[in-house]
Amino acid sequence: MTLITLLTDFGNKDEYAGVLKGVILNVNPRATIVDLNHNIEPQDILGAAYSLKYAYPYFPAGTIHVAVVDPGVGSTRSILAVHVDGHFFLAPDNGLLAPILEIKSPGKLVRVENRNLFLHPISRTFHGRDIFAPVAAYLSQNGKLDKLGPFIQKEQIRPLDGHKPSMPEENKIQGIVVNIDRFGNLVTNIEDRALKAMSAWDPKSVVITAGDSLINGLSESYSDVKPGRLLAIIGSRNCLEIAINQGNAAKRLRIPRGVPVNVSLES
Amino acid sequence: MTLITLLTDFGNKDEYAGVLKGVILNVNPRATIVDLNHNIEPQDILGAAYSLKYAYPYFPAGTIHVAVVDPGVGSTRSILAVHVDGHFFLAPDNGLLAPILEIKSPGKLVRVENRNLFLHPISRTFHGRDIFAPVAAYLSQNGKLDKLGPFIQKEQIRPLDGHKPSMPEENKIQGIVVNIDRFGNLVTNIEDRALKAMSAWDPKSVVITAGDSLINGLSESYSDVKPGRLLAIIGSRNCLEIAINQGNAAKRLRIPRGVPVNVSLES
Amino acid sequence: MTLITLLTDFGNKDEYAGVLKGVILNVNPRATIVDLNHNIEPQDILGAAYSLKYAYPYFPAGTIHVAVVDPGVGSTRSILAVHVDGHFFLAPDNGLLAPILEIKSPGKLVRVENRNLFLHPISRTFHGRDIFAPVAAYLSQNGKLDKLGPFIQKEQIRPLDGHKPSMPEENKIQGIVVNIDRFGNLVTNIEDRALKAMSAWDPKSVVITAGDSLINGLSESYSDVKPGRLLAIIGSRNCLEIAINQGNAAKRLRIPRGVPVNVSLES
Repeated sequence: MTLITLLTDFGNKDEYAGVLKGVILNVNPRATIVDLNHNIEPQDILGAAYSLKYAYPYFPAGTIHVAVVDPGVGSTRSILAVHVDGHFFLAPDNGLLAPILEIKSPGKLVRVENRNLFLHPISRTFHGRDIFAPVAAYLSQNGKLDKLGPFIQKEQIRPLDGHKPSMPEENKIQGIVVNIDRFGNLVTNIEDRALKAMSAWDPKSVVITAGDSLINGLSESYSDVKPGRLLAIIGSRNCLEIAINQGNAAKRLRIPRGVPVNVSLES
Repeated sequence: MTLITLLTDFGNKDEYAGVLKGVILNVNPRATIVDLNHNIEPQDILGAAYSLKYAYPYFPAGTIHVAVVDPGVGSTRSILAVHVDGHFFLAPDNGLLAPILEIKSPGKLVRVENRNLFLHPISRTFHGRDIFAPVAAYLSQNGKLDKLGPFIQKEQIRPLDGHKPSMPEENKIQGIVVNIDRFGNLVTNIEDRALKAMSAWDPKSVVITAGDSLINGLSESYSDVKPGRLLAIIGSRNCLEIAINQGNAAKRLRIPRGVPVNVSLES
Repeated sequence: MTLITLLTDFGNKDEYAGVLKGVILNVNPRATIVDLNHNIEPQDILGAAYSLKYAYPYFPAGTIHVAVVDPGVGSTRSILAVHVDGHFFLAPDNGLLAPILEIKSPGKLVRVENRNLFLHPISRTFHGRDIFAPVAAYLSQNGKLDKLGPFIQKEQIRPLDGHKPSMPEENKIQGIVVNIDRFGNLVTNIEDRALKAMSAWDPKSVVITAGDSLINGLSESYSDVKPGRLLAIIGSRNCLEIAINQGNAAKRLRIPRGVPVNVSLES
């Protein structure tokens, strides 16, 4: 099997994602294509980065993950292809892959420049179709990054600024809401292990603030609180989430993406 | 071919459905996965139950239908696997499968408890990924329910309360709106054959009320009435639907899911 | 590989598109099915026609494109099957295929009438499931139009009224907004080559008006203007688009589908 996943901000309104599949299957009729997520908020590189970071490990080794959230399309931004943690990734050099590459050492990392692999004429507005799709299809047949372009160093790629939680003082963590899911759950970038690394960690003494809301303690499951009640929980990414049992926390709290979330411990 | 369908309330906003596919393909790279519907309203067990009941017969025998609308995730609710009417179903024991099992006799029915088949650690919030997906993939390779957990009786599963139409008196039927589709059509749980079983049945004498609206007679196709006009029709599920030709009945009538729909016969 | 694409106005809210796949895979388990676009606005034949016209060439030759935007379902409208430009198309005879057939000569064109291929009973409201899907599956195995119904002439099909840009005078073109994409880009039916065919063509002297807005000159990429600024660009269909760099032009300008777009040249 050759597996290619697609993560974009194309939405489901248009034929854009479908066209990518046409281009891929035209090159490699045996490719299996999975829609990972096409509803990243337009140009939300941070949301895409975190969606990808926590999803890719569930796919088989050798999967090619194509991520096209690309506000700089048509400008001089580069396109990266990388083999890391047993998976291939193809994405604009705009920080999207930075959270993965910060914690995993890439095997090979190239700048995609081999125009022979692209669809021509190359549009200025739809590199997903004209560059990402045919390059992914080529990679799915060939399996080698060498032909895509020059090798570069990890230090040469663009970082994703400000995405990592900070520890302003001992036993305090400040993170942000990186994704809001369909259920209105506020998914933060604060990992379970960062919480557990606090010197005075105790799940009962934790205090979480986001906007005007304050939550005491971590729940083990949504149903630990009554329907309609606010809770904090370690979600399926092993990150802190703020949720309402059978309700929509984002709507109730009116908290958008990017809002700071503070964790401290009651003394 | 091994065919697995997915019916969830995960929506299209997140990577959740994509991750399920990764987990399945990691176990069984030959599985064909079809998205049946990921946009069941959050926690709408009734809507999911009816969507599945009327869709599954169109799939090939042997298809594995995975239905994850699961407000009780992380609590003590069970997960069911069943072979019925030539198809396999995997769903929480929350009533979702009840409408199918009420009319079809299950072959084998088990409570899914074999933790060796699950992904570990098992999250408290995403059993779709950690239990349903790997169990469905196992089933797609193995085809037998025996290894999933203990056999149980049909009488042991949770019913779906209040989903069946009632007949308050002769020649009257009271049902509800179970789904509202993209076109704003109000799809009820009143089947064609229930109408035809009325002793004084005549499609011209039928009177349908929903909210403040009243419709006289059944139409044969949308275009039987002028664009913008309200009509009642036996829809593609062979159930009574309320629609507006080239318009949106749900928006116009402001009728949400769950609203009662009454059928009587003019005398 | 046998590739079938689906373009409909079924949306993602319901199980309708999933059911089509069940029907297809029941007939031909080896078919590969790609969702081209299920979010055509309800009954928007023009939007569907343009979405399909510019998408199909990216699929492999031999692909079967099924397009179901069908306000006349259940009435007497015909269903067409055609082989043109190396691809197969199946669509209602309501103008949906007209823009393709106007510029490409069909090989074979038939009216789909062979009820032996349909699912029975044939519903009055869901021909996608009962006619389009099984006929597409048959075609994917058989590859010949002969068995579907009688051959007809191109002149017998319904045209799509008013979809072509007009040239009210020399160096002026009047088109319309045919699609609004997820990013709020206003996609017109004015092709690049129509612009270049203007006798006094100069991309710097072009003036574009839509609603109350006026744009001077064509941009080469979104980032040619500052974030938040309006621009006109030749988009990925090689058609004129109106966009806002990193913004949503449709929302800002409050311009719906169908609005006229005028191009003239500054003298």
